[in-house]
Amino acid sequence: MSHVLAEFVGTALLVYLGDSVCANCTLNKSKGQNAGWIVIAAGWGFAVGIPAYLFSNFSNQFNPALTIGLAVIGKFPWAEVPGYVVAQMVGGIVGGVFVWLTYLPHWGITEDKAAKLGIFCTAPAVRNYPANFLTEFLATATLVFSLAAMGTVKTADGMGSIIVVSAIIFVLGCALGGPTGYAMNPARDLSPRIAHAILPIAGKGDSDWAYAWVPVFGPIAGGIAGALLFAVIF
Amino acid sequence: MSHVLAEFVGTALLVYLGDSVCANCTLNKSKGQNAGWIVIAAGWGFAVGIPAYLFSNFSNQFNPALTIGLAVIGKFPWAEVPGYVVAQMVGGIVGGVFVWLTYLPHWGITEDKAAKLGIFCTAPAVRNYPANFLTEFLATATLVFSLAAMGTVKTADGMGSIIVVSAIIFVLGCALGGPTGYAMNPARDLSPRIAHAILPIAGKGDSDWAYAWVPVFGPIAGGIAGALLFAVIF
Amino acid sequence: MSHVLAEFVGTALLVYLGDSVCANCTLNKSKGQNAGWIVIAAGWGFAVGIPAYLFSNFSNQFNPALTIGLAVIGKFPWAEVPGYVVAQMVGGIVGGVFVWLTYLPHWGITEDKAAKLGIFCTAPAVRNYPANFLTEFLATATLVFSLAAMGTVKTADGMGSIIVVSAIIFVLGCALGGPTGYAMNPARDLSPRIAHAILPIAGKGDSDWAYAWVPVFGPIAGGIAGALLFAVIF
Amino acid sequence: MSHVLAEFVGTALLVYLGDSVCANCTLNKSKGQNAGWIVIAAGWGFAVGIPAYLFSNFSNQFNPALTIGLAVIGKFPWAEVPGYVVAQMVGGIVGGVFVWLTYLPHWGITEDKAAKLGIFCTAPAVRNYPANFLTEFLATATLVFSLAAMGTVKTADGMGSIIVVSAIIFVLGCALGGPTGYAMNPARDLSPRIAHAILPIAGKGDSDWAYAWVPVFGPIAGGIAGALLFAVIF
Repeated sequence: MSHVLAEFVGTALLVYLGDSVCANCTLNKSKGQNAGWIVIAAGWGFAVGIPAYLFSNFSNQFNPALTIGLAVIGKFPWAEVPGYVVAQMVGGIVGGVFVWLTYLPHWGITEDKAAKLGIFCTAPAVRNYPANFLTEFLATATLVFSLAAMGTVKTADGMGSIIVVSAIIFVLGCALGGPTGYAMNPARDLSPRIAHAILPIAGKGDSDWAYAWVPVFGPIAGGIAGALLFAVIF
Repeated sequence: MSHVLAEFVGTALLVYLGDSVCANCTLNKSKGQNAGWIVIAAGWGFAVGIPAYLFSNFSNQFNPALTIGLAVIGKFPWAEVPGYVVAQMVGGIVGGVFVWLTYLPHWGITEDKAAKLGIFCTAPAVRNYPANFLTEFLATATLVFSLAAMGTVKTADGMGSIIVVSAIIFVLGCALGGPTGYAMNPARDLSPRIAHAILPIAGKGDSDWAYAWVPVFGPIAGGIAGALLFAVIF
Repeated sequence: MSHVLAEFVGTALLVYLGDSVCANCTLNKSKGQNAGWIVIAAGWGFAVGIPAYLFSNFSNQFNPALTIGLAVIGKFPWAEVPGYVVAQMVGGIVGGVFVWLTYLPHWGITEDKAAKLGIFCTAPAVRNYPANFLTEFLATATLVFSLAAMGTVKTADGMGSIIVVSAIIFVLGCALGGPTGYAMNPARDLSPRIAHAILPIAGKGDSDWAYAWVPVFGPIAGGIAGALLFAVIF
Repeated sequence: MSHVLAEFVGTALLVYLGDSVCANCTLNKSKGQNAGWIVIAAGWGFAVGIPAYLFSNFSNQFNPALTIGLAVIGKFPWAEVPGYVVAQMVGGIVGGVFVWLTYLPHWGITEDKAAKLGIFCTAPAVRNYPANFLTEFLATATLVFSLAAMGTVKTADGMGSIIVVSAIIFVLGCALGGPTGYAMNPARDLSPRIAHAILPIAGKGDSDWAYAWVPVFGPIAGGIAGALLFAVIF
């Protein structure tokens, strides 16, 4: 398959699995309701690591902040950035649609509109845009630095793309997810936010567009910073 | 050993371990009672991944939805499908018997009939057959797509069959298990449901046959769809 | 180092780590008090898997039920069994001593005598010796069958001895640990029970000798059965 | 990059991730508040294992107790010890600064001064300096013994440095973390304690200097003992 198709399908799978973890932990009567942060963090870890593994022979960036960061340091051609980013962003919307379908009977019996939005996109624990931006900047810088650095370690087979990627996402969730819910990826935040706005979700509220720029520009700025830090140090 | 024997023993072990996780989390006075979704999801992950690893030199499908899906796309001979499916279904019944034996003193001191049934087979969180069918369809399509795709990645040794399979089952439980309990496999749902119906379980209720078709035909349809998606994309 | 020394040190480390997980989850004011079954099961998983990995170049059975089971099917010389079993049993006592030392200030501030005993050895959730024996028999048969079967899968390096062993112990705890606390190993139950009887543990109760035979003879019988099942099937 | 730079950056990343796990579980309104010991133990496991993996081509000790222990048994040159220890200790301070920045809006809305200090450094569950010293001594001896022993097992690629290291830290947290919070590393305790003392953290209390020597000298003595035990046995 083409690299762009891999980015599209992989990002859709990533958002479908990851956002569904939030649905399972949040929606009324769902069997995993209130399962706690360990399920959020470990579920999201493998929601990213499994597509990264399955598509490792093709392309597995799934994140505009990573794609742009790698382009800035010359590790990815700028000419391919637009195609990648479009595939990732559209994939994220498709992933959000599948979350809605999978949990179809649960939207109408869940009153909390903010909880329903929180399945599709992140919201800050304390609303403070400069501080929220800083948190997303630091988390994404750590993410992109780590993903770039893992390429320097020899691996005998494809296990690295599931074990290391899942571990990085898991620990970022455990460590840095507290203030903003660790978006770290516009295709994981803006794209399903668009799905939330478009879909006929029973009893939904607004899509909190006032905050939407933070988990887009914080991650992009952080991704560039993390990539540059990698290029300087390694 | 023959492939069919591996399917029989492996599926029995899978159902024995997986359904026992539910018994541990559910039955009165069990030391793991109310251990939460993380134990369900991680326990089931390895309950599938460990047999997949142990029998990886012989045969490790353990799921009619996977076997049929692979046959549809020409990755498994149709002539072997009946033998495999029978071995898987009988194995699932035997697994259910061992769950009953392991937790023998706990059935009589647990009043909740639905909870006891829920150890052997799945039940929907919100009873809505078309929606429940859709959830099982989507979850199994994701499962079979992922299992087929993992065959495209180079692995140096047998580690993939435990790490990747366990991770896929784990994330599907975290993400897509909320509405229906992620059966995704007739040998994991119909077979131990039959065990529940046959065994002299202390204080048991009915076996909810009205729902039994959903976690059989949803997974089979989903398995075919996931295999076809793999064949089209990869 | 000699095989017997590896068995002694490895079993001491296994019991020290595993029983300390129980201490952390049980003792008053301990930072992990009431951490739940996921910590018990995952902690015990790696408490066995890490020594199995560290001593994999020497000897890593650490369990008389495994040693005797392997001898019965001709996979381990009977002449070495006595030395191994003595090293394992003495190692288990030493491991218990280190648990006591590590949690020294916590014994006196914990009133529950049964909880303190439960750190060193197992107790049944429902006291029914034949049923408890059956549970330990089935759990250990599954353990020894799985450990024997994992030797049939090619591994490129030592990762199998940590990943697979930890996963097996983890899933057995999640699945089969509910009725009896999954001793599955006389050196993990009788040995630290002896440590409990000998040590001047503040405010300790009796060592429940009436039950002590179950987690010795259940595991040994189960280990033989699991090894035989492996020899017949594989 | 130079070995000393790797020690500096790696230790900063280790403390940033690990201490942030504590921040997420502790601070008011943080999304992971009260996530429980499983998140602490698993988060810290990968907080150590990921830097150990990323910098495995350069240098990945990140702990003066390990560095000194290895020097005592002749596995690391004494001439490089001062540079390593300084890099580790300064890295730990920098890591603490990033924790503060990431959780900026949460310090002012958290009243509990001891909880805020507990994010940066450890405190004993029961204050008893000789017993606390013994616990840190035993935990660090187990850590350094295990890290030295893992070098004796063949690994095909870099996976050992993430899987085994993370597993060791995880199990030590589950098992031995109850009495003192398992510092086991002066660069993880004294360094961020200094950061706590220096930084303008909203509503902070004192930095508990009376206890500060225990998680420095207990780990160093334990690290030497663990290294010597390894040298004698293996």
